Amino acid sequence: MSETKIPYKIYLDESEIPDSWYNVRADMSVKPAPLLNPGTGAPLTAEEMSGIFCEELVAQELDNDTAYIPIPQEIRDFYKMYRPSPLIRAYCLEKALGTPAKIYYKFEGNNTSGSHKLNSAIAQAYYAKKQGLKGVTTETGAGQWGTALSMACAYLGLDCKVFMVKVSYEQKPFRREVMRTYGADVTPSPSTTTAVGRKILEEHPGTTGSLGCAISEAVEVATSTPGYRYVLGSVLNQVLLHQSVIGLEAKAALDKYGVTPDIIIGCAGGGSNLGGLISPFMGEKLRGEKDYRIIAVEPASCPSFTRGKFAYDFCDTGKICPLAKMYTLGSGFIPSPNHAGGLRFHGMSSTLSQLYHDGYMEATAVEQTAVFEAAEQFARVEGILPAPESSHAIRVAIDEALKCKETGEEKTILFGLTGTGYFDMVAYQKYNDGLMSDYIPTDADLEIGFKGLPVVPGQA
Amino acid sequence: MSETKIPYKIYLDESEIPDSWYNVRADMSVKPAPLLNPGTGAPLTAEEMSGIFCEELVAQELDNDTAYIPIPQEIRDFYKMYRPSPLIRAYCLEKALGTPAKIYYKFEGNNTSGSHKLNSAIAQAYYAKKQGLKGVTTETGAGQWGTALSMACAYLGLDCKVFMVKVSYEQKPFRREVMRTYGADVTPSPSTTTAVGRKILEEHPGTTGSLGCAISEAVEVATSTPGYRYVLGSVLNQVLLHQSVIGLEAKAALDKYGVTPDIIIGCAGGGSNLGGLISPFMGEKLRGEKDYRIIAVEPASCPSFTRGKFAYDFCDTGKICPLAKMYTLGSGFIPSPNHAGGLRFHGMSSTLSQLYHDGYMEATAVEQTAVFEAAEQFARVEGILPAPESSHAIRVAIDEALKCKETGEEKTILFGLTGTGYFDMVAYQKYNDGLMSDYIPTDADLEIGFKGLPVVPGQA
Repeated sequence: MSETKIPYKIYLDESEIPDSWYNVRADMSVKPAPLLNPGTGAPLTAEEMSGIFCEELVAQELDNDTAYIPIPQEIRDFYKMYRPSPLIRAYCLEKALGTPAKIYYKFEGNNTSGSHKLNSAIAQAYYAKKQGLKGVTTETGAGQWGTALSMACAYLGLDCKVFMVKVSYEQKPFRREVMRTYGADVTPSPSTTTAVGRKILEEHPGTTGSLGCAISEAVEVATSTPGYRYVLGSVLNQVLLHQSVIGLEAKAALDKYGVTPDIIIGCAGGGSNLGGLISPFMGEKLRGEKDYRIIAVEPASCPSFTRGKFAYDFCDTGKICPLAKMYTLGSGFIPSPNHAGGLRFHGMSSTLSQLYHDGYMEATAVEQTAVFEAAEQFARVEGILPAPESSHAIRVAIDEALKCKETGEEKTILFGLTGTGYFDMVAYQKYNDGLMSDYIPTDADLEIGFKGLPVVPGQA
Repeated sequence: MSETKIPYKIYLDESEIPDSWYNVRADMSVKPAPLLNPGTGAPLTAEEMSGIFCEELVAQELDNDTAYIPIPQEIRDFYKMYRPSPLIRAYCLEKALGTPAKIYYKFEGNNTSGSHKLNSAIAQAYYAKKQGLKGVTTETGAGQWGTALSMACAYLGLDCKVFMVKVSYEQKPFRREVMRTYGADVTPSPSTTTAVGRKILEEHPGTTGSLGCAISEAVEVATSTPGYRYVLGSVLNQVLLHQSVIGLEAKAALDKYGVTPDIIIGCAGGGSNLGGLISPFMGEKLRGEKDYRIIAVEPASCPSFTRGKFAYDFCDTGKICPLAKMYTLGSGFIPSPNHAGGLRFHGMSSTLSQLYHDGYMEATAVEQTAVFEAAEQFARVEGILPAPESSHAIRVAIDEALKCKETGEEKTILFGLTGTGYFDMVAYQKYNDGLMSDYIPTDADLEIGFKGLPVVPGQA
């Protein structure tokens, strides 16, 4: 058997870690709508934002024009501990499927946080440190973001307070322990330690929590504790900016071998992985240089893109955060506890929402048993046990590859394998035991969330 | 800040995955003592062994002369899914310690089994498949080996029956689920499904099990079920042979940068990681070409090298396996359940035992709270959450680096980071909560195990 020309894993050199993040907003003719002050309805100023976020991150959040923003050397040094991440040719999966399609995946799971979240965590922690802050607060759902932030803070010597969605705190005690090992302070949300937490508990006793609740609590603590700011692992423009390192590396690796993807697939919760993976490709598409089919995959149980409204909404349940224009199910929407894994956020990145609205990408929703089927098939031939979140992208990548098998087309498919499922074994056990079921909200379920959309001038 | 000359992570090319395994026995002037038939006391013949092991593996087990044994292409193709593994320069740890020592570690945890075990699992499963077998049986303690074998069997379409030490089965349900996701059949040991299991349960009701018990059960099923053979994740010569890929890659990566280690450190349970890591370096030492300080690190609670006897002993509790000459605590020795993680085997590789006996390597025992201290320190600066087993090596690497800080010596230290601790969070939680304690067996405790040593002709 001869060596294959394209290796199983394409590793770039450490020197090929990008020098700059790529800001896709610079190439958008219609920019994402600005965040609004929930009180006045006016666009949020840098000054208003800087009470919540670090100054440098506020600048990145508001910058719709600079295409390339340099990555500070200290962040690049940290990236070297786990980056460049491998771009893997899924030879074994292709063989198992019997497809003529060529499948590649960018694997972001080879670090202790188990996902791509570390790319933005270290950036946000770095700017907080640079500003002389004492610590940061955040929320975490499935736990990857909280772990990533704990790691970054441990490395830089920053204090880290994490509000963890209660259902995950209970179902994923090991994630909590990883965060504690990295020195973080972890509180189940909603909690009685914040005013907004107490209010949510009063209104919804027995709630298992949501990202929206946890965000409210983390923001309250950040804005009421001197020397602290709030950081967020997804949704925001700044996060997509940092995550562009995924796409930049993937593109550089493919370019090395003269490979151009036809289809690019990513799972979408708040949009951080998808936005990062697609950004340089989307840039080419926006500039009219190339065309790609770009597919966002979301859970059928939390279908922001495919069944949400494109409207201004609160990012949090407590309604204390700025308003963002996005595809949303309403900040009151809480996915069924039946739903495994992350991708539970009611909204979506404003940048991706605008791109989707303008027709630059597609979206599809998949059910969770089909997702775990794909996860198991993938694990058995490719060796990697994928996170449930990532497995949404695997599902659609397999489906597209099977379409190629029918048509005989040799399409090149790139998907984002955002992380590993080592902390998701409760969900895998359910699947292994045949006890996993699907849940699709009815239109009436969704109406409840939509009713809570805020009234914003100029929005129907 | 300029780029450092030696990268954080040295990745070899896929084409640099070794073509052959290196068999350190070929360079030993005193060969490891042969396995004995427990009934007759005579050296085990290939024919006798082939009832337990696959034929090709029997040949590898008995071959004390061939220095290089080619790695079949199918195994190399599987290796490409996760190898070459990175050799990492611990810049961040060096900085945190303030040591002039240069620390490198070979990281084997970037695969779903979470450890180096996959290197031998795929080899053993491959030869079983090649022989036309239906399946294999094995034991697993902490669970890495069982996971690795499940992955290899899923890839090749082989049946896989795993006996999992009961205490781990209960404390690590997630490991069990990973194995099930890869299609393995997992039974807690001792179980009532085997004669030897029932006997052990009768004699020791309420036992939490041991590797020795689980081996007995797995061997019984393999030898009594047509189309099955038994495979073992450590101790055996064949396993050390397969694991030589670790050392060969590490040496090739160091050679590329003209780096020669002064000290090589590995944790030792049955010896698979240590034997693999050191093999090419030990070869040079045996041939008188170079000198290295080689240190085996074992838990103070299961101190085979440092407090065991060099004698023929059973490899299993049920006393149905061949006798091996090795440093042993006696097959009746069962480590305290207080002891976290693996490295619980009462014996040690015959090859390593001979090398230790002949003065080619040192051994040291460390206590578990000190091990977890090292693990936490390492995790916070290097990002990787290490397995408790691997952390034994980290402890001694840090200690050696701190000695260099005192003396000002710029020694180069290489250690094996065998795996990740994602499935060891129960132990980490204990440590985080300040509830971890140490356990060192008394001489009287050890005497119990020594009393069970078999009477073998020519052995005192």
